[in-house]
Amino acid sequence: MPQRYKATIAYDGTPYVGFQVQPNGPSIQAALEKALKLMTKGQEIPVYGSGRTDSGVHALGQVVHFDYPSEIETEGLLRALNSILDDAICVKTVEPVEKHFHARYHAQRKAYLYKVSLAPFISPFDRHYVLHHPYRTDVSRIQAALPALIGTHNFKSFCSTKTDKTVFDREIYRAECQASEDGQTLTFYFEGNGFLYNMVRIIVGTCLQIGDGLRPVENLSDLLRIQDRNAAGPTAKAHGLYLHHVDYPSRAERIAKSEANGFY
Amino acid sequence: MPQRYKATIAYDGTPYVGFQVQPNGPSIQAALEKALKLMTKGQEIPVYGSGRTDSGVHALGQVVHFDYPSEIETEGLLRALNSILDDAICVKTVEPVEKHFHARYHAQRKAYLYKVSLAPFISPFDRHYVLHHPYRTDVSRIQAALPALIGTHNFKSFCSTKTDKTVFDREIYRAECQASEDGQTLTFYFEGNGFLYNMVRIIVGTCLQIGDGLRPVENLSDLLRIQDRNAAGPTAKAHGLYLHHVDYPSRAERIAKSEANGFY
Repeated sequence: MPQRYKATIAYDGTPYVGFQVQPNGPSIQAALEKALKLMTKGQEIPVYGSGRTDSGVHALGQVVHFDYPSEIETEGLLRALNSILDDAICVKTVEPVEKHFHARYHAQRKAYLYKVSLAPFISPFDRHYVLHHPYRTDVSRIQAALPALIGTHNFKSFCSTKTDKTVFDREIYRAECQASEDGQTLTFYFEGNGFLYNMVRIIVGTCLQIGDGLRPVENLSDLLRIQDRNAAGPTAKAHGLYLHHVDYPSRAERIAKSEANGFY
Repeated sequence: MPQRYKATIAYDGTPYVGFQVQPNGPSIQAALEKALKLMTKGQEIPVYGSGRTDSGVHALGQVVHFDYPSEIETEGLLRALNSILDDAICVKTVEPVEKHFHARYHAQRKAYLYKVSLAPFISPFDRHYVLHHPYRTDVSRIQAALPALIGTHNFKSFCSTKTDKTVFDREIYRAECQASEDGQTLTFYFEGNGFLYNMVRIIVGTCLQIGDGLRPVENLSDLLRIQDRNAAGPTAKAHGLYLHHVDYPSRAERIAKSEANGFY
């Protein structure tokens, strides 16, 4: 009997074209599917993520699901996957889930980090992991601007025009920016019920312009009203972004929801 | 008039064959020489380091010197070098020094770090920067062993047989190993008047075997007496090692020393 598993994974996005399988290079999804194929002696096992991440974007807690052809002890599954996978991907946890669990459709809340260095020269060790923004950025302006995002809003101004989405309403629970003690590193943290294509990166790109004095502190509120991507700031580079974690309803809530949808 | 400069540099050793120019790939020395050649419109300016670092070894504070064909404002030199150099190398400071200053011959004290992860699975973000050693390592055994190294000893047991050195006496001022709060990461710190080829890596490889219970705690003292590389543990991998800093005598002391040697 096949068994569905939910796995939490971390990855360094640097060597990948992104989470999703692409013709032009290695993806995290393809690496996971290849590892499962090796473990099952040639079976094709599709892996579904909570969502895509772009090339160069990192994850501390991406969530995926897949159906393993048989029940397998989770500790053994975890060890086998990690021993096969390249060290740029780490499976942190694996657990058996109900057969209708879906990493994408059941995702209830996501959180992202974005890291920025304001230092004149960036540490070589941060070059793939932190955006270098060596300007006189006033973090207090960014901190004053961010609360405007909290709540349910139309985020069309903060969505890539390459999206296939038509509904731009999302609810944001947390939108914060903390400076390190020496003031040289900023860490943005966003939590919401979902994020549009490039949404965090466009928010960060806009916030940095607010911090640099190129946009007024009220700009985020204005952009929520304007609903025009061209009015917002640039898309901050991919390599400062981390998918921090994805939250799901409890198993009981998920099953109740699936039953209501006629799945059981 | 040419002017000698001392520069402190940090680098991620991952993409390099090591500090020194090699025929088989990019080196830190070659990158610095190329940047200086570009700045001086084609002049060959040799760069001298405090010592070599092997392929994959990192530096937080390597020191080099070179002769620039003219006096140049240090802030401008710093900015120009960093804008030309790949982000894997960062020039942290530049200062003009006396014409006989030598990064290698005047080096008085060096310090190295070595990082180890004992976690069952290593973070993808640590894979090039921390040795993965997923074993039941007892750090208290390592901490009990290390003080034996303090003082002046013959370190032949801890020197690669590929060395061209014939004198193996070195003085160690500090030899420590600290565990992170969660006990999952060890950071070794060594400070001495000089280090032999692979010395820190062989000490760490031996210490990990002591921590794993494969060697007695007294083993380091025994090895200092035995003076045989084959009796020591394996050479720990390059990517956990960092040249932390290099200390020099004050300018006045250096000049006094040079005068005593007939340089002035």
